[in-house]
Amino acid sequence: MRQSELFTKTRREGPKDEVAKNAELLIRAGYIHKEMAGVYSFLPLGLRVREKIEQIIREEMNAIGGQELSLTALQDKTLWEKSGRWSDEVIDNWFKTKLKNESEVGLAVTHEEPLTNIVKGFVKSYRDLPVYAYQFQTKFRNELRAKSGILRGREFLMKDLYSFSRTEEEHQDFYKKTEEAYRKIFERAGIGDKTYFTFASGGIFSKYSHEFQTLCDSGEDTIYVDEKKGLAINKEVYDDEGLKMAGLKKADLKEKKAIEVGNIFSLGTRYSEALDLKFVDEKGKEKPVIMGSYGIGVGRLLGTIVEVLGDEKGIVWPESVAPFKVHLIHLAGSDKTKEKADEIYQGLMSAKMEVLYDDRDLRAGEKFQDSDLIGLPYRVIVSDKTLESGRLEMKVRASGETKMIGEDELKSL
Amino acid sequence: MRQSELFTKTRREGPKDEVAKNAELLIRAGYIHKEMAGVYSFLPLGLRVREKIEQIIREEMNAIGGQELSLTALQDKTLWEKSGRWSDEVIDNWFKTKLKNESEVGLAVTHEEPLTNIVKGFVKSYRDLPVYAYQFQTKFRNELRAKSGILRGREFLMKDLYSFSRTEEEHQDFYKKTEEAYRKIFERAGIGDKTYFTFASGGIFSKYSHEFQTLCDSGEDTIYVDEKKGLAINKEVYDDEGLKMAGLKKADLKEKKAIEVGNIFSLGTRYSEALDLKFVDEKGKEKPVIMGSYGIGVGRLLGTIVEVLGDEKGIVWPESVAPFKVHLIHLAGSDKTKEKADEIYQGLMSAKMEVLYDDRDLRAGEKFQDSDLIGLPYRVIVSDKTLESGRLEMKVRASGETKMIGEDELKSL
Repeated sequence: MRQSELFTKTRREGPKDEVAKNAELLIRAGYIHKEMAGVYSFLPLGLRVREKIEQIIREEMNAIGGQELSLTALQDKTLWEKSGRWSDEVIDNWFKTKLKNESEVGLAVTHEEPLTNIVKGFVKSYRDLPVYAYQFQTKFRNELRAKSGILRGREFLMKDLYSFSRTEEEHQDFYKKTEEAYRKIFERAGIGDKTYFTFASGGIFSKYSHEFQTLCDSGEDTIYVDEKKGLAINKEVYDDEGLKMAGLKKADLKEKKAIEVGNIFSLGTRYSEALDLKFVDEKGKEKPVIMGSYGIGVGRLLGTIVEVLGDEKGIVWPESVAPFKVHLIHLAGSDKTKEKADEIYQGLMSAKMEVLYDDRDLRAGEKFQDSDLIGLPYRVIVSDKTLESGRLEMKVRASGETKMIGEDELKSL
Repeated sequence: MRQSELFTKTRREGPKDEVAKNAELLIRAGYIHKEMAGVYSFLPLGLRVREKIEQIIREEMNAIGGQELSLTALQDKTLWEKSGRWSDEVIDNWFKTKLKNESEVGLAVTHEEPLTNIVKGFVKSYRDLPVYAYQFQTKFRNELRAKSGILRGREFLMKDLYSFSRTEEEHQDFYKKTEEAYRKIFERAGIGDKTYFTFASGGIFSKYSHEFQTLCDSGEDTIYVDEKKGLAINKEVYDDEGLKMAGLKKADLKEKKAIEVGNIFSLGTRYSEALDLKFVDEKGKEKPVIMGSYGIGVGRLLGTIVEVLGDEKGIVWPESVAPFKVHLIHLAGSDKTKEKADEIYQGLMSAKMEVLYDDRDLRAGEKFQDSDLIGLPYRVIVSDKTLESGRLEMKVRASGETKMIGEDELKSL
């Protein structure tokens, strides 16, 4: 894409009320727009990144048998009354509104109830199970404060998968599969080496659960990391019982700040019993379905990548989620150089490479500053000087490494 | 995909309170689930169709220079107060809710205000224009009644594009381009021959606008069609002035029922003036930006395809939007036949063909009924009988045409 045609532009300053590094950089670089605290629109660059992250997650969820669907935001009160979660005393961050006939509806904070109800319509016997269904859908959570940029939103996109199993064994097998799929996702998203499988509290669901926590000084969570084992435990359950369950020893642990990028929960029969989701087993006996839920906040993951990989100059995208792979930059000079830059751009487009082409009429310094801020993996310069040498100057954003490359090398980046 | 693994199943009956043909068929076939009146979740088959429709629209919007983004559902009251559209007396189908600090927020019924505000942050001079931005995003509309299935939802996915132009001429050029893009979309979605470019009222925006109306007896709109010219006029503006503006004559028109599948509006400077979106032109003069909006309801388009192409047996998908191209059906018989069916399925998967493989242990009659209801373009049978002949029985869902084909022909469908 030609940068002259991209309608967003970079800014030197973020909004004054924005204290989070992730949102500040993403706003300055033109990826997102702040509508209000905790509510961010995704602009063209930001949407491209979000969709790449979605696609990584989608591939890994499909690989373990997930079937994608899309539930609604508006929620029928009666379903949530059955599980006892309609009350604001049980879920304290509901947004609620009303139909014209005055009946109350909620905006989905999560989707256990509606999905359990849907699955109930299709499951009668053990032959209809297991079911693994997931979606990318907006969650609405009425947070009292929202100061962490896109790490904790009032409206945010989440991948949530729910498992419906026949036996505890079948459930545990899938739980383990999801753990592995999540490892692959965070690896592919470029933060695998900073992300720990973490023993955590179960919240309202069950006594314990697991989280994936990415080390980051600005994280809201405190965890204790065993670097050798590659495991961690959340401060919430950092006591003798928790340590024993997690198989960790105090002496081996270091305290760290971290961001929760994913979680996996055993739900047991909490929702299947409340919503009457049963099946008839091989012996003709009726049993409640055993459930699990598995979440990844897509926006939060995007923001975490910005927080942990970004530097003082701006964002640093891993190639897997970058909006474009190459930032091709033309520096003002002879007409011949401009023609050459256009030609290289066309060649890369024909080769289906994802390129942002800075064809704007700006000074070199401004272009370099913008390029560092936007954070594409490879910056390639076409100037009178580089052209004379018959080579192009290429800089790797992450390492800062610079080298002169030929056009062929550029195409095979 | 193996049908035995698809967690949804067909049903003989739709929900009792469902009066719309589109929703009744889509629910029975397992494409959607009704959460409440006007609020439908998309199950795996339905999501596949929706995404194919989205992709057709996306390609045509990109082809005319549209840049995709994603705005939020939660809306800041202050922006809508500037345009005078916050009041329930002006927009009578708002859903509104409250933040914890008691400040009111709305759920987006449309997105002129927030997008105009975003564009304002990037546009200073004529060099920054035009801007064409679009999204696929959920709209929330608090309809008093919602009895048309997915044709009129309280929560529904919409493609909305907004244009920001410097001059009326530039605006009209783009308006015309969108008209042509919309024709291509409805053509590609299989309802081009039933869809008319229709002169219509402008609603709250401007005196006149244009709609795309698809002929359908269950449509909510009444239009007058000039079949020769391929044009129509909406009943709302069916008077001497309207006819003159539309260039139509009463004598040439036939009254028809239709569904509005798309609309294009000139907004003038209504929102740019209210939200102070100005630019400095070539002569240094400050001017308000000229806007247009262009909508297609994705769910409504999906529902319209079901309404107008479906028959008494079920849904009939055009190939372009079908969840799978081929319904491969194995009929119980010898083990050899089952092996052959599995082999054909694997072969089609390797050839990247989209196949739903009915490998379930059911009687032939049930499988055929399901297949007609689900409505994939080609039904292909593998049975002892067809195998003896060395050929496969293929039926075209839309025409009912049946013929015997070889495996090579199947792969080149």
